[in-house]
Amino acid sequence: MPKTQKLHLHLESSRKRAPLFHLTEEKWAAAAKRHRALAKNLHVTIGWDGDIIDDALKTTDVMINSNPPRENLRGRAPKLKWIQTTGAGVDGLMPMEWLPDDVTLTNNSGAHGDKAEDSCTMGLLMLNARMPEVLTNQRERRWAPIFSTPIEGKTAVVIGFGDLGQAAGRAAKKLGVNVIAVTRSGKPTKPADFVYPVTRIDRALPKADFVIVTTPLTAQTRGLMNRERLALLEPHAGFMNIGRSPIVDYAALTQMLAKGELSGAVLDVFDQEPLPADSPLWTTPNLVVMPHISCDDPRYIDQLFDTWFANLERYLAGRKLKNIVDRKLGY
Amino acid sequence: MPKTQKLHLHLESSRKRAPLFHLTEEKWAAAAKRHRALAKNLHVTIGWDGDIIDDALKTTDVMINSNPPRENLRGRAPKLKWIQTTGAGVDGLMPMEWLPDDVTLTNNSGAHGDKAEDSCTMGLLMLNARMPEVLTNQRERRWAPIFSTPIEGKTAVVIGFGDLGQAAGRAAKKLGVNVIAVTRSGKPTKPADFVYPVTRIDRALPKADFVIVTTPLTAQTRGLMNRERLALLEPHAGFMNIGRSPIVDYAALTQMLAKGELSGAVLDVFDQEPLPADSPLWTTPNLVVMPHISCDDPRYIDQLFDTWFANLERYLAGRKLKNIVDRKLGY
Repeated sequence: MPKTQKLHLHLESSRKRAPLFHLTEEKWAAAAKRHRALAKNLHVTIGWDGDIIDDALKTTDVMINSNPPRENLRGRAPKLKWIQTTGAGVDGLMPMEWLPDDVTLTNNSGAHGDKAEDSCTMGLLMLNARMPEVLTNQRERRWAPIFSTPIEGKTAVVIGFGDLGQAAGRAAKKLGVNVIAVTRSGKPTKPADFVYPVTRIDRALPKADFVIVTTPLTAQTRGLMNRERLALLEPHAGFMNIGRSPIVDYAALTQMLAKGELSGAVLDVFDQEPLPADSPLWTTPNLVVMPHISCDDPRYIDQLFDTWFANLERYLAGRKLKNIVDRKLGY
Repeated sequence: MPKTQKLHLHLESSRKRAPLFHLTEEKWAAAAKRHRALAKNLHVTIGWDGDIIDDALKTTDVMINSNPPRENLRGRAPKLKWIQTTGAGVDGLMPMEWLPDDVTLTNNSGAHGDKAEDSCTMGLLMLNARMPEVLTNQRERRWAPIFSTPIEGKTAVVIGFGDLGQAAGRAAKKLGVNVIAVTRSGKPTKPADFVYPVTRIDRALPKADFVIVTTPLTAQTRGLMNRERLALLEPHAGFMNIGRSPIVDYAALTQMLAKGELSGAVLDVFDQEPLPADSPLWTTPNLVVMPHISCDDPRYIDQLFDTWFANLERYLAGRKLKNIVDRKLGY
């Protein structure tokens, strides 16, 4: 097959992101070896921070890139048909007017479940044992035994019940914790015991011993956990966010933590990442700061490539791709 | 039945201990109500820090007391037949020359399993996610993403496999973690995948992704995890102690943590409790300090009383008691 008939795949990374997320020559070579037959159809270029992007776009058919160039994309990339993001959340790409109508956008939803399940199991147990308070006490060299009952039989409210939310649900069920999911539709979904539509979220929140926020950031979820909704939680409740920070009013949350109006919180996502050294969040009482690690496996890019090759097989066969992002809903 | 034929039960507490462990009038009244028929056989006195101990001992048949008076006990308590401790560990009562031959000592082993299981599940996941390092970074306001693979398929070495060790084993199995138990006999015990006799502990330790120390403190376990044995662990291994501190060389452990020769540790027990504010352990890198809370449920004394009443029923029927401490082995 002559080279010109191959698909041109362009891989683009930012050195500013953690090395875990870099689409390196080495990781690509290993993936191409695992998917040798499919890889034969590809001509591949690898760019960093836009160093070769203008040239590459001229002939690119398919791109893997978490932050695709948006200005005049159709003009610069006349052949582009498909963009794959390395992450699951595409809130940073909204609104999607920049995306040509005939370009398909797929995300990496589904890659985060196993790790997220571990993190949610840990987070639920840490909140139940009031570890955010125990760790605040350690920071202040204060011995203060805090005793808590076993977690079995308590209730977690999981906000959003996609890939991450279902992982949170599995984590809870494994511990004998009841699961109330809050979703757009409110339709029954395993492994939730009850599902509330988001229109009735105010009825779910007072039942929570624990809340885990897992939704993508969309126009509908931005500010969902505002001050009024946080105030619906019991003072003994614990709070965890592995979704996106603008879903939750962190100013209200940290005030509640400081006043003892919530028992503790574990946050993995922040408005500004890296969290600046002078952020007050580092020392907010009863708050555990995790540096956006709860859903990512170090084998992340290997898994991304494997998932992408499975989608490439569908693409070449003219079948519908998996993980297509709805450009209006934003996930 | 005339009062003189009733058994005299003396309850003795120390106000220095956490209120959780206090044998209060209120908790006793609730327990006596739950076990009304048995309670009718009892005449009960309640003492605090020895305030009425000399008088009480003159007629005491049975005592619940974690720190029984040891000097001339037979002379002071001629009728005493049975002492129940509130805790499981009786290392503080060794050697047991003070205990008259015809007095039975029972401990509260078995009361700690459910809570210990939660704590071990949490501890394993925290060690796997390298949370001790993440939390050290939080203390130093440093954003440093650390990514770890899911825990499933890794290996925990559990030292001691009694009530707490089996709880650690259940915690591990629930997470898909392989369990190597180290015990005195080395006999197969569920839910361990492999059991090594303590004489072969040096072969078990290098296999550990995680170590959980759960043994009671005895002449045989004191210093078991010395510097040489700690050095057998892989640098990526995480370490947890919910047993007793003199089993482990904490000086060696903290040196290893500071040098990165272990990935992290979670310690719940210390030589001196409360841990003094000037202890270097509070700020040892990659170390989580828990204030001896990992195995205790706030309903602790209620459960102790329930267990004790079940034993009282055996006592009155002349049957063998449960949880009798071997005065030579010390557990």
